[in-house]
Amino acid sequence: MIKYPNMKKTQPQKTQYTNTRGLNLEKDINDSNAYYNAINRAVIYKKPTPINVVRVQYEKRSVAKIIEAYYQQASTTDYNGVYRGKAIDFEAKETKSKKEFRLDLIHAHQIKHLASVLKQGAIAFIVVRFITLNNTYLLDAKIVIDYYNQKNIKAIPIEVFEEKGGVITEGFTPRLKYLDVVDDLYFGGGQNEKK
Amino acid sequence: MIKYPNMKKTQPQKTQYTNTRGLNLEKDINDSNAYYNAINRAVIYKKPTPINVVRVQYEKRSVAKIIEAYYQQASTTDYNGVYRGKAIDFEAKETKSKKEFRLDLIHAHQIKHLASVLKQGAIAFIVVRFITLNNTYLLDAKIVIDYYNQKNIKAIPIEVFEEKGGVITEGFTPRLKYLDVVDDLYFGGGQNEKK
Repeated sequence: MIKYPNMKKTQPQKTQYTNTRGLNLEKDINDSNAYYNAINRAVIYKKPTPINVVRVQYEKRSVAKIIEAYYQQASTTDYNGVYRGKAIDFEAKETKSKKEFRLDLIHAHQIKHLASVLKQGAIAFIVVRFITLNNTYLLDAKIVIDYYNQKNIKAIPIEVFEEKGGVITEGFTPRLKYLDVVDDLYFGGGQNEKK
Repeated sequence: MIKYPNMKKTQPQKTQYTNTRGLNLEKDINDSNAYYNAINRAVIYKKPTPINVVRVQYEKRSVAKIIEAYYQQASTTDYNGVYRGKAIDFEAKETKSKKEFRLDLIHAHQIKHLASVLKQGAIAFIVVRFITLNNTYLLDAKIVIDYYNQKNIKAIPIEVFEEKGGVITEGFTPRLKYLDVVDDLYFGGGQNEKK
């Protein structure tokens, strides 16, 4: 198997015992980003999980061993970077539902963050995998925010992902060809010169 | 004092016992970013320090207490986000030298990352504080990379920061007006509409 120079970068994430829901999707995205990075198509990373370190032990002068720490809730989305000159920012979620994406799966601060980066001109979206259907979609953040802000609306129907989003095709390299959907939705299907 | 909605976001960083060199500059930048974010001028964050978690204890079902973990070397730069439609990516360093910035203060993988984001069209630079002079400069990543790749060159003279970079003026809000330098260097001095 091909070794991507920055495959290592995804390993810290894998070894962290964070909420395991979405870990498969996370791994797929991390691997895809490592591939995109390796072929110079995009530079997109998952942000490390913020951890509040309380106590550190220095066994050797050089090695700091953390002996008490706690996971913190991220203030932003999980992924960001740059692609075709634009800032990219997105969140990835998995759901077992076959018909909708429950909005309580996204935190209020993530909605706020997506709105802020949209305002600054970033390309922002969510990637949602419907595990049971084994379908993964990309949906623009603006649509997600509009649904989120509507009273009495608790979920985004899968039809919205079908009609206004894009299906992310899966393969070997990259595992999730999500930048092809970004090309279609945000660059009029134009292909990246660097591809 | 004004409470910025996302001031909290910088606190995990402060409590982490990472390499303390550069912590003052880091705090100044984090506070400035919180302010810029609060006034909707930019969305720029410091990435959490990647930590490799080895052992976790569940005291209550809900609380995961990390009892063994180690800091990992970041694969990217410390700061990134979006400003005026462009992806922003930079690294911040402090030096005690009065005449130069030693290139061994920047890791090879950070140079590689800066080159990658430049290739993707991001605005990339380094922020260097000369502690002894109490001067903080912003210098475009392309210049840094060119120096880095030259054989037998071990440092960037402060004159280069003076002539090709920009001095970051300090104030109260924001502590470091570094986006004004970004406006000058990358947007022809044009002011941000959203300001």
